[in-house]
Amino acid sequence: MDATVVGVLGGGQLGRMFAEAASRLNVTVRFLDVGDNTPAKQITNVPASVGGAQHVDGAFSDAAKIAELAEQVDVLTVEIEHVDADELQSVLDRGLVRAVHPAPATIKLIQDKYAQKVHLQERELPVVEFVAVENGDVQAAVDRFGLPLMLKSRTQAYDGKGNFTLRSADEIPAALEALGGNTRPLYAEKWAPFAKEVAVMVVRSVNGDVRAYTAVETVHENSICHSVYAPLRDALPGLDARARHIAEQAVATFSGAGIFGVEMFLMPDGDLVINEIAPRPHNSGHYTMEASETSQFENHLRAVVGLPLGSTALKVPAAAMLNILGLADLSKDKDAIAKTYAAARRSLSVPGCTVHLYGKAGCRPGRKMGHINVVGTSDAEVHERMGLLLDELALAQESGKMGTPWDAAAADARANAPVPPPKKSAADFSHPQPLVGVIMGSDSDLPVMLPAAQMLKQFEVPFELTIVSAHRTPDRMRTYANDARARGMRIIIAGAGGAAHLPGMVAAQTPLPVIGVPVKGSTLDGVDSLHSIVQMPRGVPVATVAINNSMNAGLLAIRMLGTGIPAYLDKMQAYMGEMKDGVLQKVERLHTEGWNYTLPGK
Amino acid sequence: MDATVVGVLGGGQLGRMFAEAASRLNVTVRFLDVGDNTPAKQITNVPASVGGAQHVDGAFSDAAKIAELAEQVDVLTVEIEHVDADELQSVLDRGLVRAVHPAPATIKLIQDKYAQKVHLQERELPVVEFVAVENGDVQAAVDRFGLPLMLKSRTQAYDGKGNFTLRSADEIPAALEALGGNTRPLYAEKWAPFAKEVAVMVVRSVNGDVRAYTAVETVHENSICHSVYAPLRDALPGLDARARHIAEQAVATFSGAGIFGVEMFLMPDGDLVINEIAPRPHNSGHYTMEASETSQFENHLRAVVGLPLGSTALKVPAAAMLNILGLADLSKDKDAIAKTYAAARRSLSVPGCTVHLYGKAGCRPGRKMGHINVVGTSDAEVHERMGLLLDELALAQESGKMGTPWDAAAADARANAPVPPPKKSAADFSHPQPLVGVIMGSDSDLPVMLPAAQMLKQFEVPFELTIVSAHRTPDRMRTYANDARARGMRIIIAGAGGAAHLPGMVAAQTPLPVIGVPVKGSTLDGVDSLHSIVQMPRGVPVATVAINNSMNAGLLAIRMLGTGIPAYLDKMQAYMGEMKDGVLQKVERLHTEGWNYTLPGK
Repeated sequence: MDATVVGVLGGGQLGRMFAEAASRLNVTVRFLDVGDNTPAKQITNVPASVGGAQHVDGAFSDAAKIAELAEQVDVLTVEIEHVDADELQSVLDRGLVRAVHPAPATIKLIQDKYAQKVHLQERELPVVEFVAVENGDVQAAVDRFGLPLMLKSRTQAYDGKGNFTLRSADEIPAALEALGGNTRPLYAEKWAPFAKEVAVMVVRSVNGDVRAYTAVETVHENSICHSVYAPLRDALPGLDARARHIAEQAVATFSGAGIFGVEMFLMPDGDLVINEIAPRPHNSGHYTMEASETSQFENHLRAVVGLPLGSTALKVPAAAMLNILGLADLSKDKDAIAKTYAAARRSLSVPGCTVHLYGKAGCRPGRKMGHINVVGTSDAEVHERMGLLLDELALAQESGKMGTPWDAAAADARANAPVPPPKKSAADFSHPQPLVGVIMGSDSDLPVMLPAAQMLKQFEVPFELTIVSAHRTPDRMRTYANDARARGMRIIIAGAGGAAHLPGMVAAQTPLPVIGVPVKGSTLDGVDSLHSIVQMPRGVPVATVAINNSMNAGLLAIRMLGTGIPAYLDKMQAYMGEMKDGVLQKVERLHTEGWNYTLPGK
Repeated sequence: MDATVVGVLGGGQLGRMFAEAASRLNVTVRFLDVGDNTPAKQITNVPASVGGAQHVDGAFSDAAKIAELAEQVDVLTVEIEHVDADELQSVLDRGLVRAVHPAPATIKLIQDKYAQKVHLQERELPVVEFVAVENGDVQAAVDRFGLPLMLKSRTQAYDGKGNFTLRSADEIPAALEALGGNTRPLYAEKWAPFAKEVAVMVVRSVNGDVRAYTAVETVHENSICHSVYAPLRDALPGLDARARHIAEQAVATFSGAGIFGVEMFLMPDGDLVINEIAPRPHNSGHYTMEASETSQFENHLRAVVGLPLGSTALKVPAAAMLNILGLADLSKDKDAIAKTYAAARRSLSVPGCTVHLYGKAGCRPGRKMGHINVVGTSDAEVHERMGLLLDELALAQESGKMGTPWDAAAADARANAPVPPPKKSAADFSHPQPLVGVIMGSDSDLPVMLPAAQMLKQFEVPFELTIVSAHRTPDRMRTYANDARARGMRIIIAGAGGAAHLPGMVAAQTPLPVIGVPVKGSTLDGVDSLHSIVQMPRGVPVATVAINNSMNAGLLAIRMLGTGIPAYLDKMQAYMGEMKDGVLQKVERLHTEGWNYTLPGK
């Protein structure tokens, strides 16, 4: 596809997934890393018959080795930012390569987290408040920001290494000791009691175009990325667009091409602040391999080679990623890898899961050994699938902690067993990831509206049921309608009687389809409600069903969901078949028992 | 993930994509093929430091080389069926490997297309009528089946090689000459004037479980696979299920594990007949790499190693695959590869496209050099995206045929150019891949129903508009409703006045959501239509909008589509913003011009 030969500093898992993308586009990639069996080199053969550029065996901190790689390739890039940026600049200045991506200056800037924050702050991008720690004077930072306080190494920090949470001033000596603060530069950040961690991948082309992927929620455990959920859900309309905008603006300030991972905090007041930026493919972007129109690795390749950037759109409704972290030390526990892979083995029997193992020979606790991508037709389905993996992971972890022998056979049996049905929550009218919201103005409407909920339950549609009154809780109605889409809901069913404003007023405040159920009052036989719900002005439709017929509202919601999730249409087809059979049975009964047969319920 | 070492006879593109799947699951694979730079070996490094099983350099027809590979691995499989099945059986009998998948007997059976058909026919599976040609007596077959007649080599046939279409008895000597029929066994098939070619991939586990992927339409040119569309669309409800069932039944009759490609003809009367079966990953299954929950290659790996089979469900609404076939001979045309890759380069700028190049060093006309997978939110979007690639392909082909110089710079410029807007068809009320059908009982309803069509057009929703009358064309109504889903439609908007049975009767015969528009007649102010449409019995809902308000029906359809295609919700949100702005302008005007200002249109 392109004759450019790319050299990469580092040949670990990020290099491996980059190599996979490069093979598909037939672009030659060579790696600098120690040994001939690193994750990236395993899948990048250099046939003797072909010759040309070779992998380099050596440390990516070794200037001579960098030059050896550079002399064989056209463009250099990195799989880790902790490289010698000055040496990369020198390689570029000496004309050994056409380009280094991202630019050495960008790598150098990002390496120093304090300098990175100063850079972003000067460009009016939102960051957590921070201050340099001069001469080990942590107390000055405590005086300024209070406690707890986050102390960080300016350089060589990743996966939580180089961070210290200072909870009392007494801990200052211990913190300096832990961070090597007497010799290494530190800085302090104001404590950020975030509501969620958010990340956005952004790819930047050689000529500075930026394209963000969807915003995702990242979950960390012990400062290591545990799992990722896409798209980001929160009751904040426009949050995704805001996060993408901030991330694109931030990446636009750097020079050089490639993919960047922008980590942010969502604060309780709804503000987003940048935590830090990685100038390379990032763990929070692994989900793109199965869930996006172009993976982060392919877009990184396209960017550094100068090919057109690929679409960053999600191609599935929902996705998640679970890291496979080493659970034990292989040198001490022969089952370390089997335990570590337990969730991956289980995932083979869970639909929508794709396992990526990195081919590392060793294993130690917390080491990134692989990841599992999960896709599904809805947030609920993805969470259900993730739940099965997390259960397996918990079993493996528990066995490690308790010192009980690891039961490989049992883990294998689970991996091969059919997937169990989802656990039914007792509170099935308040599913945490509802696709349908069933609302009504008062609990007096509940008897009329329950059949809608029952149909949704029968068809296994995740839903919530609650009370929202147009006239008694107009603010709650506004919030409910406004937030519904951002929360991941796809349809709202609203029941109302008399003046019956709820369905129409909700439809006026959400782009989602709203189904209206006219509830029959004590006068006018429900015609008042029907006309009030159905006779909407041009521009704002309400899908109206028959008076008091919330069962049909439930069925209509399922048909609507079927436009995106065909399995629901299969179920609907089966349901219609059952209705037909039910009538044919009555035909048969009428035929055999005569016209005088007793009607059911009489 | 699994300690089994897999050996593969053949290391071309199918082996390459198999190797990719194996790397992800950390399963070791070694290939037997000539040279050290075959597509599969390129991405399967065997580091000197690790040792263990090695690739074998040699022909997969070489018994000694097969044994050399077998001695190093646990399980053997093939990327091509034209192998020495007896030798594989011997390797198994000698205990050199634990298993050969699929079973050598299966490979041997499938190699002989005549024996394959006898096998299927004996098991009551539908096949094209056929007869053996004994002693070159083609005339007997002509007498039996008439002309044209399909003459085929029983063995060593692929990509149309070994087939001869006999159009007149005079051609018999030429046919025997072309097929080597005096020395090689032939058979004849009755001419099959199929409506479509259909294929289904089926994976079979070691213990005989079978799982079909979705049925797809395959398009061949010069007997070579050109493109594939998934899912299969046709106005035949249940066709997909029928095709999958036949394919699963066929594969269940074989022994051994692995993936099988089942090619079928859809005959004009709606029957499906099996054309032939491949006992390996198949070109018609390449779309699964980006479009399915598990790719055909990963499922082949899981099957031969004995891991649980993966889900075969589609994870995107629609997909297609375009083969990248060599357009010229590299030894004669230095631009052969650039021309060949033209469509692939263009695809980099088209959303939803993923390129897979096979890394072949040479290029000749018709050789499989790679493929492009395309995914999208609807059939229409996938066809639109494919259209851009086909345009580029046509340019490259044309240049080859005309002998005009290949303009690499122009091709590059197109590849880098933004994607042009879709070509608007003049007949935009009859989109070939409609998502919405707008129907009404009579053209007298057209003035009322047009605003629905206009909204769909404004939001760029592919739709069709036609006349279907419940009372004057009840059969047409039944067919329309029954076929809509199989045709790929997702929503039906039906307008009706007076007795207004159309929406409800359509809803009774499709699982799709139906939107009813009550049309106001000359009496009763449309209340008759409204009540007739909205007051549906329990079990069959119609989403009813206001009397004569088909504009809202269009908007409701867009909101419904938004449950599966979020981009429509973004557009709806923007539209609602514009409505708000429109009102606020009137507020402003009233404020500045006073209450006596002239209303628009007065």
